[in-house]
Amino acid sequence: MAKLIALYKKPENPAEFDERYFNGHLPLASKIPGLKGSEVSKVLGTPAGESEWYLIAELQFDSMDDLKAGMSSPEGKAAAKDVMSFAKDLIYMMFVEEQKVPASAGK
Amino acid sequence: MAKLIALYKKPENPAEFDERYFNGHLPLASKIPGLKGSEVSKVLGTPAGESEWYLIAELQFDSMDDLKAGMSSPEGKAAAKDVMSFAKDLIYMMFVEEQKVPASAGK
Repeated sequence: MAKLIALYKKPENPAEFDERYFNGHLPLASKIPGLKGSEVSKVLGTPAGESEWYLIAELQFDSMDDLKAGMSSPEGKAAAKDVMSFAKDLIYMMFVEEQKVPASAGK
Repeated sequence: MAKLIALYKKPENPAEFDERYFNGHLPLASKIPGLKGSEVSKVLGTPAGESEWYLIAELQFDSMDDLKAGMSSPEGKAAAKDVMSFAKDLIYMMFVEEQKVPASAGK
């Protein structure tokens, strides 16, 4: 499984960010072809205290090829354009590939 | 659901890191009380090219209280001590809380 992970730094106005992210961006992102699931988490902190990060989102695809095709689709481009309109300076994106974890190390 | 997310920067020797991480650290981490699951992914890159990050691990717990209790347990402390012995300068940890995603934006 391949994932697009998007980390967002703390926005100046979290309420405004949440409105645009959860009510505007997520519905758009949900239309990306090949998307198998999504997880969104708010960052509470680090062991040392506050984090510079605010939110982490994971978009799951069956493969890196599916991820790339999804991002290149009209729906993927619309979602990317949308997020850049309000979070251009906050977002850091990574493409990742899930590893098989030995049976002894979790489900 | 609460998660401990650990991001690891690119190690100098990835093969050595993988050996210590997958065969040493993960089996230890899997013993942390309250752990409900784990996901480990390798970072392939960013939209702009190479990423400074190498690996991302997520340890899932039912709640932030469970996560804290797990990390404070002898097993949690053993796993933390182990990871600090080979990845102290590479690791960045965050505590996060999963958000309910609107039905229209989920799998």
